[in-house]
Amino acid sequence: MRALRGNLVVGQSGGPTAVINASLAGVVQEALRHEAIDGIYGMRHGIEGLLREELVDLRRQSTETIERLKHTPSAALGSCRHRLSTADYERALRVLRAHNIRYFIYIGGNDSADTSHRLAALAAREDYELWVIGVPKTVDNDLVETDHCPGHPSVARWLAVSVRDAGLDTAAIGVVDTVKVIETMGRDTGWITAATALAREREGDPPHLIYLPERPFRREQFLADIDGVYRERGHVVITVCEGLKDERGEYVSASRRDVDVDRFGHAQLGGVSGVLCNLIATELKIKARFDKPGTIQRVSSVLASPVDMDEASRVGQTAVREAVAGKTGFMVSIIREPGPQYRSTLGLVPLERVANAVRQVPDEFIAPAGNDVTAAYLSYIRPLIGPPLPEYARLARVPVPARLA
Amino acid sequence: MRALRGNLVVGQSGGPTAVINASLAGVVQEALRHEAIDGIYGMRHGIEGLLREELVDLRRQSTETIERLKHTPSAALGSCRHRLSTADYERALRVLRAHNIRYFIYIGGNDSADTSHRLAALAAREDYELWVIGVPKTVDNDLVETDHCPGHPSVARWLAVSVRDAGLDTAAIGVVDTVKVIETMGRDTGWITAATALAREREGDPPHLIYLPERPFRREQFLADIDGVYRERGHVVITVCEGLKDERGEYVSASRRDVDVDRFGHAQLGGVSGVLCNLIATELKIKARFDKPGTIQRVSSVLASPVDMDEASRVGQTAVREAVAGKTGFMVSIIREPGPQYRSTLGLVPLERVANAVRQVPDEFIAPAGNDVTAAYLSYIRPLIGPPLPEYARLARVPVPARLA
Repeated sequence: MRALRGNLVVGQSGGPTAVINASLAGVVQEALRHEAIDGIYGMRHGIEGLLREELVDLRRQSTETIERLKHTPSAALGSCRHRLSTADYERALRVLRAHNIRYFIYIGGNDSADTSHRLAALAAREDYELWVIGVPKTVDNDLVETDHCPGHPSVARWLAVSVRDAGLDTAAIGVVDTVKVIETMGRDTGWITAATALAREREGDPPHLIYLPERPFRREQFLADIDGVYRERGHVVITVCEGLKDERGEYVSASRRDVDVDRFGHAQLGGVSGVLCNLIATELKIKARFDKPGTIQRVSSVLASPVDMDEASRVGQTAVREAVAGKTGFMVSIIREPGPQYRSTLGLVPLERVANAVRQVPDEFIAPAGNDVTAAYLSYIRPLIGPPLPEYARLARVPVPARLA
Repeated sequence: MRALRGNLVVGQSGGPTAVINASLAGVVQEALRHEAIDGIYGMRHGIEGLLREELVDLRRQSTETIERLKHTPSAALGSCRHRLSTADYERALRVLRAHNIRYFIYIGGNDSADTSHRLAALAAREDYELWVIGVPKTVDNDLVETDHCPGHPSVARWLAVSVRDAGLDTAAIGVVDTVKVIETMGRDTGWITAATALAREREGDPPHLIYLPERPFRREQFLADIDGVYRERGHVVITVCEGLKDERGEYVSASRRDVDVDRFGHAQLGGVSGVLCNLIATELKIKARFDKPGTIQRVSSVLASPVDMDEASRVGQTAVREAVAGKTGFMVSIIREPGPQYRSTLGLVPLERVANAVRQVPDEFIAPAGNDVTAAYLSYIRPLIGPPLPEYARLARVPVPARLA
């Protein structure tokens, strides 16, 4: 059914990314093309801004500002992580009615898909005609029913470049700083950590070991792995996910202080690399340091993937087109087309299927030993990060003959 | 006096940087132009490689490889951090004699200047004609007698871009992740941390507070600072140096385990940001997370400063020219010429004056409150990092009028 003439609201939710503003730009630029859409509003800090009626008029932004959003990292409207109460949903619907908002576009991950799904269901029950479309976004890449998630290819490119550079650093100074542990984001899935494998150009390049939360962290095996690489190479670079868990399913490191648990009850992660450095120093008596780039990894515009920027913009555009075409209760998904050249098309999947589900790194992408990825994984990720990494010099091994005993 | 015909050796020492290979390229490209120079050798892992006679023939590298070094991060020859014993110096001289090495070019910081100075003195005592020139290199920017140190402008550019992006991240999601602590390198001086001020475009932009080790860390004042920004803005981004010390001169966080103390007796730093996050969470009851980019900040080729790359190459070239002209016992220094456009020339300073001295951030570069830098500092640093940062979109504040109570 064709949608009513009315206003559109768009919001951004969850952790910022390098390209979530490209999706916002796509939404606005597409909305400007449809006569069914009058006002184009942005929620300040996602659904929280909607509840407080903090809306920004996106028609009154300059064309240049909207275009420049495509290269502006983080969430320009502000983001949030807010689980709505029943009263909140009712309030949200009142705000939508009061502003004659008929199109609701929410850019986010699985929590946001859940919010959108529930709001669509409530509107249907209350006979308020509302077209709700979710736009996928998460650096974690953990949404189901889509080949990958906008935001993820950019963190993957950032890590490919940065872990490669940091690996060269250890290759040079590993005689002193012997083990480097690089901690990535990703929470309960290892997609982000897996992407560090893209740093390798040749066999034996860093990272030498990759630990994903899809496999339980086994202390003895871990130490044996490190020791093995150390004996072979004299230095070790490993990458680990912030959300590593032990065999009992407990986080290797997480804070459960009240102040650190967010509104969805997720514990604040981060710190596993410090724990592992201590373990290595104590048990193997070799020096270990960690790099934990934290939020820097997810919002770099300079190292963002051009493939990701393009897709992020397209999923935003498509969300608006589908809403105006009368679709509701769906998330835009990315479909990888077969063939040697990477090419994606876009589809729709029910929000309900995406809501609160988590896609882990599948077994075929994880090496049997549990400390690396597979060639199949590299085939999956490589086309998403865009152009090849910069070419570096490698000195030829031409020694000067020794003259002393 | 004109130097003898003979071989040249070049080495890289200390922490890698984004441009130390540009200095190596400068040395090799210049050495190729001088008839006085026969062999051009590189020490593998600095002075350690010289002691072991592990030398690589740099004349047998392709022209492309040498040129590409200018954009290749980390130390291509390998680096070290090795304090020589008296026996080591004698061994080094024996190796130099055996290979008829007459030109000794050492790229490094103040420890390396000390090594070069002592080797030059020994050669003079032993009547071995040797021309020793030091090439400045340190991300820490803590060498005396030079306007700045190659390597530093690149880490400054990396942090300007990355802290700006990470600041936007907190501006978007600060409702959940309220305080961000970004820990930089820099050891006992705050040059690197100070450079995070370059992330600001406008008054009030992150970082909101900057803590350098030149000022003692005062717990109560720190908490009051954070609380003040939090009350004003609702979120806080601060940058801190890994080497912050309290009023008794003790590191806020450092490991003194034997395995973590390097061969110069320096403790391994890193971890102050975790300590500060705990302090903020415990005392102020607000959520704090840290980003600690670690070695990633110092070796990024993509975000390196073009000014730095050019100067790094030039200091390498000049070192060779001065050695061939008969100078010994000096380090090449960078001199900032007066005038509105940044321009540098190169000079020479005695290695002895540089050896083991440390240049702290001067008082006129630190704000009186001890939690920020001054305009004079920004005038010093800004020309060194190259072109302006990418332009980002800022949404105009045009609210949609509220319709509900």
